[in-house]
Amino acid sequence: MPEYKSPVRDIKFVMQELLDCETHYQKLGYEDATIDMVDAIIGEAAKFTEQVIAPINQIGDEQGCTWNNGEVTTPDGFKEAYQQYVEGGWPTLAQSIDFGGQGLPHSLNTAISELFSGANHSFAMYPGLSHGALATIEEHGSDFQKNTFMPKLVEGVWTGTMCLTEPHCGTDLGMLRTKAELNEDGSYSLTGTKIFISAGEHDLSDNIVHIVIARIPGSPEGSKGISLFIVPKFNVTENGEVADKNAVSCGSIEHKMGINANATCVINFDGAKGYLIGEVNRGLNCMFTFMNAARLGVATEGVAAAEASFQGALAYAKDRLQMRSLTGVKNPDGPADAIIVHPDVRRMLLTQKSIAEGGRALVAYLAQLVDIGHASKDEAEKAATEAKLALLTPIAKAFLTEVGLECTSHGIQVFGGHGFIKEWGMEQLMRDTKISCLYEGTTGIQALDLLARKILGSKGEILKPFGAEVTAFCVANAGNEAMQEFIQPIMTFGGDLQKMTERIGMKAMQNPDEIGAASVDYLMYSGYLTLAYFWAKMVKVAQDKLAAGEGDSAFYEAKIKTARFYFQRILPRASGHAACVENGAVSMMELAEDDFSF
Amino acid sequence: MPEYKSPVRDIKFVMQELLDCETHYQKLGYEDATIDMVDAIIGEAAKFTEQVIAPINQIGDEQGCTWNNGEVTTPDGFKEAYQQYVEGGWPTLAQSIDFGGQGLPHSLNTAISELFSGANHSFAMYPGLSHGALATIEEHGSDFQKNTFMPKLVEGVWTGTMCLTEPHCGTDLGMLRTKAELNEDGSYSLTGTKIFISAGEHDLSDNIVHIVIARIPGSPEGSKGISLFIVPKFNVTENGEVADKNAVSCGSIEHKMGINANATCVINFDGAKGYLIGEVNRGLNCMFTFMNAARLGVATEGVAAAEASFQGALAYAKDRLQMRSLTGVKNPDGPADAIIVHPDVRRMLLTQKSIAEGGRALVAYLAQLVDIGHASKDEAEKAATEAKLALLTPIAKAFLTEVGLECTSHGIQVFGGHGFIKEWGMEQLMRDTKISCLYEGTTGIQALDLLARKILGSKGEILKPFGAEVTAFCVANAGNEAMQEFIQPIMTFGGDLQKMTERIGMKAMQNPDEIGAASVDYLMYSGYLTLAYFWAKMVKVAQDKLAAGEGDSAFYEAKIKTARFYFQRILPRASGHAACVENGAVSMMELAEDDFSF
Repeated sequence: MPEYKSPVRDIKFVMQELLDCETHYQKLGYEDATIDMVDAIIGEAAKFTEQVIAPINQIGDEQGCTWNNGEVTTPDGFKEAYQQYVEGGWPTLAQSIDFGGQGLPHSLNTAISELFSGANHSFAMYPGLSHGALATIEEHGSDFQKNTFMPKLVEGVWTGTMCLTEPHCGTDLGMLRTKAELNEDGSYSLTGTKIFISAGEHDLSDNIVHIVIARIPGSPEGSKGISLFIVPKFNVTENGEVADKNAVSCGSIEHKMGINANATCVINFDGAKGYLIGEVNRGLNCMFTFMNAARLGVATEGVAAAEASFQGALAYAKDRLQMRSLTGVKNPDGPADAIIVHPDVRRMLLTQKSIAEGGRALVAYLAQLVDIGHASKDEAEKAATEAKLALLTPIAKAFLTEVGLECTSHGIQVFGGHGFIKEWGMEQLMRDTKISCLYEGTTGIQALDLLARKILGSKGEILKPFGAEVTAFCVANAGNEAMQEFIQPIMTFGGDLQKMTERIGMKAMQNPDEIGAASVDYLMYSGYLTLAYFWAKMVKVAQDKLAAGEGDSAFYEAKIKTARFYFQRILPRASGHAACVENGAVSMMELAEDDFSF
Repeated sequence: MPEYKSPVRDIKFVMQELLDCETHYQKLGYEDATIDMVDAIIGEAAKFTEQVIAPINQIGDEQGCTWNNGEVTTPDGFKEAYQQYVEGGWPTLAQSIDFGGQGLPHSLNTAISELFSGANHSFAMYPGLSHGALATIEEHGSDFQKNTFMPKLVEGVWTGTMCLTEPHCGTDLGMLRTKAELNEDGSYSLTGTKIFISAGEHDLSDNIVHIVIARIPGSPEGSKGISLFIVPKFNVTENGEVADKNAVSCGSIEHKMGINANATCVINFDGAKGYLIGEVNRGLNCMFTFMNAARLGVATEGVAAAEASFQGALAYAKDRLQMRSLTGVKNPDGPADAIIVHPDVRRMLLTQKSIAEGGRALVAYLAQLVDIGHASKDEAEKAATEAKLALLTPIAKAFLTEVGLECTSHGIQVFGGHGFIKEWGMEQLMRDTKISCLYEGTTGIQALDLLARKILGSKGEILKPFGAEVTAFCVANAGNEAMQEFIQPIMTFGGDLQKMTERIGMKAMQNPDEIGAASVDYLMYSGYLTLAYFWAKMVKVAQDKLAAGEGDSAFYEAKIKTARFYFQRILPRASGHAACVENGAVSMMELAEDDFSF
């Protein structure tokens, strides 16, 4: 198993040099988030990740969680690691001071969550789910609910879940059957079965706070009749202590392709006591808060997986001796050259590297937008920010997880047959990462969200704030000769995207299926282009640093070379997607259902 | 777990209607291989696959093989299934009559092997390895060796392996350390350790015949000093019966991402008795016979995986109700429409279908070339055939396994979160299929073999016979209006390929790394184009059948529609690969090894 090393230098580059987090934080009033503080926290998180979380990744996969009569045991070491995580104050980092949090910015937490996820996807999901539950209660809960549930969730001694899916409904939540009946005391009794509940039952915390969607009898059919509830595993006393068991039970856990150390549970509610969050029948709206944050979290998993797989593959490629370079012997004292001399091995490594670093920049940028949404008082800035987040979240979620999965596949290929053996850890990364293309909305769902709901749904309005930002960057660098190899492709692919969008819009007026037919290729195209923009921005920073003679020139030159690889060998893939989009829906829709197979 | 259904109708289409196997077999003197016989055998194989091999696929994955003190136990049901396989005479099908075989053509065996592999990749590997060992002994062994080892291998009561890889050498076999010392009786004593030996030890057969590469002391360094040996697990008496145990032992088995039911073994030779095959130091040449056949077998696995995943996804897509079609309700009596109405679900299904059916045609065509190589007496035909096989084998192996893997990923996506759960069997297909991109030479190695060794190594000569065939087809259909949507893209992409090849050749004279830098994108481009040719050929057959009013018109119309999908939504990907190739090696080679990570 290759050792996970937190990519601290690159995180600093992105947060401080690319995105100037100091100015950003100060402007938003996060006065404690100075450069020194950010550095110290990232440094501590790196240490904690490498020393506590990474070492239990492989055993977590081997042992998995075990279910016994409703109780779930996590693998060896998870309970102790989680305890250290709580004792270290990590859950409190970006939470509100009012409930025991440290009040630090969300984007700092996102940076750290990449480390946790890269080192141990399964472990990172436990806190990840708690964040979702907390965000929902904080934004939509009553004071009673906040005071009752938030302090222990913030502290981390309780954890949270999101209970949405049922056996017959995943994407289509309007079909849910779990019902919530009003009790005399104003609480509700929930009855129904939820599936695929990550961290739904485990031995890490004293209580589990489920956020559950359900239908109140008499509510409208479909998605307009969904309400949201807090349903704790153990009932809670008025002063926020654990009391008797609620009628919530874990019926079983799933056996899965990966993330074995995170319990994926069937949760049964048998008249369980719950508390309505927000208004009746407005549950889906309350969910959206959570879902955007969760999707950004999943995008981070794609980046983390690319980084972790890159680290493993790079170490192996430098160490493994096999064949000679076609341009002459590079390691004359050895029986063969290290495989990193071979162009195709470099292609795989640089694909991983350029996706990990480009994706890290995109995710960090989005996390800053989330900060602005939380803390800015400038309404115009907030509106532009919201449009950018709405546009880029599905791109980041779907694109970064798809290319992240591809990167884990490259990691296996670099190892050759050894990559297929569990011991090396490379195949676990691929198995663990596949879930990221599925949960919180599959790639297909993200693509529909992007193209149908957001871009065409807003008649393109949603593209404008981010489009203006990209254009401004290109214009500002129009006179910079050294930037042209990066600026010109963005202008070309960007212009083509605009035309493509218009054509899809026109065609969709005749045939709405044109949207679904274009959607995934359109999203992938947008993803390659978006990452190109962040790579160009990174090049500009690197150029400026080199010109100023500041910092480690090798680091900045590597940035520029990696960007060049991205533009020359990754971005051109977008043209294949464009060509597929152009050919439209006809060939996808003309085959009758019965004629798919004979 | 979705039930595996043998794609008998499509196999018949490919063998009989597309490739006219009857004429082909009669011409080569396979008089028994009449249409009736072929039909009967495929029908029986389909039944055997569905009733015996498919049902133990999932339990095989769950249980895996177990190692205990050198002995390996296969999962429940494998021993019984293998016994039925032997009793049914399946191993003997395409083997020489001289050694107890039925003397039927190789291509018939390939068709059947797709069924076995699609139903149970792990199981199919046991016979697959025996075929490789048999082919090597038959082509290069002495009469003594043939008489001693072949009858039981043909019968299937013994199985075979190929022992190539060692811990420090996989691709680079010249580095091997296993040594073979001449004994007084003319046999050799082999000492060394081999790894990744598929079917290296198990409980299915009475003996295991290892084909082992090793170095005879005093031989040249590197690949010119490799000799090939037969080393049985049990020594064999003069009349071919099992005698005492040879000094061969299984040190352990690997824990892997997939193909859990096939034992991947460490095999230790401790002065084991072996027999030299062919000439001293000519071992690699003898291996090539086997490797081409093995690579075609692996290509078949890619097709089989695409087909199996397609079947599972199609059944689910017709059954699962979720959301409404964007073009209006399709299932008014249900709570939602079946997800097959959604364009993006169709995109995934049609990708699987077009890869499976197109790949099946390519593999069947190659299998006929193998028949010709075995049985033709026309030397000019044999030479052209060899060139085609040499060109298309690495394309089929690497391209079909890469897109096969992609298809298994789509299969999971169609299922949404359920695809990640083991119970459904979709994720096993992805785990099992990943090995096909690795063994028998990784995708990167196939790409180098194609571009460096074969195309540039022959100065393009090797392209000519297949290129002429494709051109002839395009010319013959130049006047066929309905064929133009299929012919024109082949001409365009084909012309571009020729220019691309020339440019790489020119650049490679300056910098040999240009070859490795282009290789995988070049291979994928070639793969998309090759499959386009086979799709166009299938369209022609379908058009002719429709025009003649023969057979089931829905089947032929579906062929044409699937071809259209392939040309409109899959083939255009090739342009992305072309754009990457054009950008050359610079951005892949300029980053110093030490600057990949900071």
